[in-house]
Amino acid sequence: MTPRRRPTTPDPAHHENSEAAGPLHELTLRHPAGSTEVLIGPEALETVVSRLTPWVAGRTVFILSSAPVLEHQGERLPPLTQAAARTVTLEAPDGEAAKRLPVAEGLWEQMLATGGKRDSRLIAFGGGTVGDLGGFLAGCFTRGIDYVQVPTTLLAQADAAIGGKTGVDLPAGKNAIGLFHHPHTVVADPRVLATLPLAEWRCGAVEILKIALADDAELFTRVEEFWDGLTRGNVAAAAAVLPEAIAAKVRVVEADPEEGDRRRILNLGHTLAHALEAAGDYRRLRHGEAVAYGLLFALRLAARRGLDADAARRVRHLLGALELPPLPDAPAERLIELMRSDKKARESGLTWVLPRTVGAVDVAVPVPEVEIQQELQAFLAEQTSGVHEEP
Amino acid sequence: MTPRRRPTTPDPAHHENSEAAGPLHELTLRHPAGSTEVLIGPEALETVVSRLTPWVAGRTVFILSSAPVLEHQGERLPPLTQAAARTVTLEAPDGEAAKRLPVAEGLWEQMLATGGKRDSRLIAFGGGTVGDLGGFLAGCFTRGIDYVQVPTTLLAQADAAIGGKTGVDLPAGKNAIGLFHHPHTVVADPRVLATLPLAEWRCGAVEILKIALADDAELFTRVEEFWDGLTRGNVAAAAAVLPEAIAAKVRVVEADPEEGDRRRILNLGHTLAHALEAAGDYRRLRHGEAVAYGLLFALRLAARRGLDADAARRVRHLLGALELPPLPDAPAERLIELMRSDKKARESGLTWVLPRTVGAVDVAVPVPEVEIQQELQAFLAEQTSGVHEEP
Repeated sequence: MTPRRRPTTPDPAHHENSEAAGPLHELTLRHPAGSTEVLIGPEALETVVSRLTPWVAGRTVFILSSAPVLEHQGERLPPLTQAAARTVTLEAPDGEAAKRLPVAEGLWEQMLATGGKRDSRLIAFGGGTVGDLGGFLAGCFTRGIDYVQVPTTLLAQADAAIGGKTGVDLPAGKNAIGLFHHPHTVVADPRVLATLPLAEWRCGAVEILKIALADDAELFTRVEEFWDGLTRGNVAAAAAVLPEAIAAKVRVVEADPEEGDRRRILNLGHTLAHALEAAGDYRRLRHGEAVAYGLLFALRLAARRGLDADAARRVRHLLGALELPPLPDAPAERLIELMRSDKKARESGLTWVLPRTVGAVDVAVPVPEVEIQQELQAFLAEQTSGVHEEP
Repeated sequence: MTPRRRPTTPDPAHHENSEAAGPLHELTLRHPAGSTEVLIGPEALETVVSRLTPWVAGRTVFILSSAPVLEHQGERLPPLTQAAARTVTLEAPDGEAAKRLPVAEGLWEQMLATGGKRDSRLIAFGGGTVGDLGGFLAGCFTRGIDYVQVPTTLLAQADAAIGGKTGVDLPAGKNAIGLFHHPHTVVADPRVLATLPLAEWRCGAVEILKIALADDAELFTRVEEFWDGLTRGNVAAAAAVLPEAIAAKVRVVEADPEEGDRRRILNLGHTLAHALEAAGDYRRLRHGEAVAYGLLFALRLAARRGLDADAARRVRHLLGALELPPLPDAPAERLIELMRSDKKARESGLTWVLPRTVGAVDVAVPVPEVEIQQELQAFLAEQTSGVHEEP
């Protein structure tokens, strides 16, 4: 990390919230196929222009984005592709609908028809779904072209854009199809978050809380300090937390680039979350909201396995401040069935990632089926009634 | 390579042609993500059973194959998967129709519905299209599962199954979508070729000739010695040539696993071949037949660039013995247009791989557009009239 203070250039066309300044942080993520540069901070988008000039020069550059992102933040892109021979904008449907194979097929055909070659480039400019789809498009087009992630949500900046996971959904399985394909560069500029809906901020905040709880006690303290701003759309709060949040993710990914073991700590809260998302047809709950419920349930299972009570209290305090949408109307049996068919399941069956204390988790904890059943029923009843029992 | 002589076990249920015996050859292909074991020789399928037992034990094993392969050679498979928890057969449409995204999507859904997980296994049992599709299915299912190639055509054994290339076609581009995903093991047992149609033998022979011409003068002499058997479906001839042919491919792939530069020598004859295949809607010419025409055209372009005349004569002699189907009815302009849109093209334009002598090629040879046009017109006229002009 090389902090560097740079002058502020507030852009009067944007919400004053976007005027946050701060040092530029640079990280390098080393992975089996090379390395990814990660630039973090207000003005990261300006800084990256000169670096990406040789990368785009004389080539066809595909911009994958969605209509709302192009509308709100599209003006930030042209400087990035000035040196390109041609820029072709590919529009992804908004939200999870983007992550479908027929959508990918249509965009690949468009890439081929507009002259895409194996030395063309792609820039994914959007939230997590655009990043996942963009990485997949790049990873499989002519057996792989180079790409850059410019995430535009807090969740994608802190989490989804880091680590090379790409893919699309099948009707029966979220992220069922994809590959590891690391970007050339990730540009996490918090100023693009100024126009992000509050519900999306909340989702990003939850994923940052998750990695802090799983692996970084110091980051957890920082998250507590800035929680109010993170959940209320404050760009300066994002700028304050993102460098350490991304550094935490980079550490975990470097230690286990293809999710053999160590990276599974990031699955904290996700076993139930994926089932909740599926039960609500990916419409009732956003990913981060489902993870918030998943974390609460993980606290519950962990409570009788030695989770320290102070850690549980601190997590509940933060999550309690969120106004989560109600749970989808699915019985425990259905959720358990969905968890079993989750992509992360092994043939050996369901295992859990459970918190031990702030900054540490237990991985691959076996929990008896009957206990899951009972605890999940109790949890659903409690969440529905609004009565939250403290362990 | 560790040659080992093993007893013959002729199988009376098969054509007597399948009774060829011979030593077992073993090669290791090292690639960025690990290594692939390659077993070559009659009885390779029996030998591999004990090695794959721990690999399949207790897991769901998907067999991707096609109806004709299952009909003729299906009985060879069950020993391979005895230790599996479950075997699920996935049927691919026969031929190039298998390599379509909607086909892949349907098979992925089937894999998910039948309990496929990220520690499941896949065995691709068939020709080049089954291998390409199988590698792609494995490469993207839950971001990558392990797989084994059991190629059942001479072309797939000698060429397509070696090197980790996987993928499907788009209507506008053959192999446009895919990734590098190397198999755990490749089993090239020439006995499975006993039921292969003669036209398929010819295709395999042409690809072996190609790699010999491009990179291995000793292999070329061996190909000349066994050409008659190779083009007439003789299993013993395949057994005699395959070990060196595969070793040649392994050397090239190891030197350049992701086709940056060195591996491009394998593109000899393929620039025109892909255009001819596309012009005939992938029905008029088989891949190897198109490559035979592509090689003849490459000789022509190379003639005025110092190709040694004896090499040209030897290649023409071999290819002249083939009864190639007629060329598709496409003018030079159309073929040039198709070559320009080929996946292997770079933004910098068309370049050629041209033979210099037996065992050596020049890569990335620029040929003036006007020369291509003239030579291609003359070539098409000559091939159509049946008059073959010797340079």
